[in-house]
Amino acid sequence: MLIEIDFQSDEAIYMQLRNQIVLGIATSVLQEGDTLPSVRQLADDIGINMHTVNKAYAVLRQEGFVTIDRRRGAVVSIDDNKAQALEEMRCRLRVLLAKGMCKNISRDEVHALVDECYDMYE
Amino acid sequence: MLIEIDFQSDEAIYMQLRNQIVLGIATSVLQEGDTLPSVRQLADDIGINMHTVNKAYAVLRQEGFVTIDRRRGAVVSIDDNKAQALEEMRCRLRVLLAKGMCKNISRDEVHALVDECYDMYE
Repeated sequence: MLIEIDFQSDEAIYMQLRNQIVLGIATSVLQEGDTLPSVRQLADDIGINMHTVNKAYAVLRQEGFVTIDRRRGAVVSIDDNKAQALEEMRCRLRVLLAKGMCKNISRDEVHALVDECYDMYE
Repeated sequence: MLIEIDFQSDEAIYMQLRNQIVLGIATSVLQEGDTLPSVRQLADDIGINMHTVNKAYAVLRQEGFVTIDRRRGAVVSIDDNKAQALEEMRCRLRVLLAKGMCKNISRDEVHALVDECYDMYE
């Protein structure tokens, strides 16, 4: 899997890394049971600090996308707490759509963007 | 406007503050031209550091929700760069919906959440 980090971005590198891995899972490039690269290897490949990779893996673990196996390292393993995932999405959408409403983005425009994303991944 | 900060939350306090102000604008509690409390006053009221309030105001300014007036302080002023706002929403939704898809949240469930948010604000 190709990881692309934008070093000019305002977004923290560990969050970019987390996002790329989540996108990889959503598009089935990464599948349940796949092992992620070791922290050292990924840090070397991208040219970032090992702490940054560790932080991304810790977030992925906390969010229920990977488990950390003592021998295999980070393994893709999606927890099936859908109720919690829905509640988190509700909170995130509330803020994101409020931002959009302030900028006159309409309900229909958001629905179109949602379809665009689902069409891209499915 | 009542600002509520959750000191137990994982979310940074300056982001919570930013979110609450954006929600205030979306629900018209705060309107174009309104002056936000001074940094010192808000910091005292909530019991947080002045730097934290400054950071929230700086983010709001960067995102085009307020301007900083030398005499009046932070003033609600929405920039009308809708194209940029749409592009930002597209990026955010891409990651957020990818997370949802990994957890088996369906397209219809997302559409329902979007309607729920718009119904709440409109």
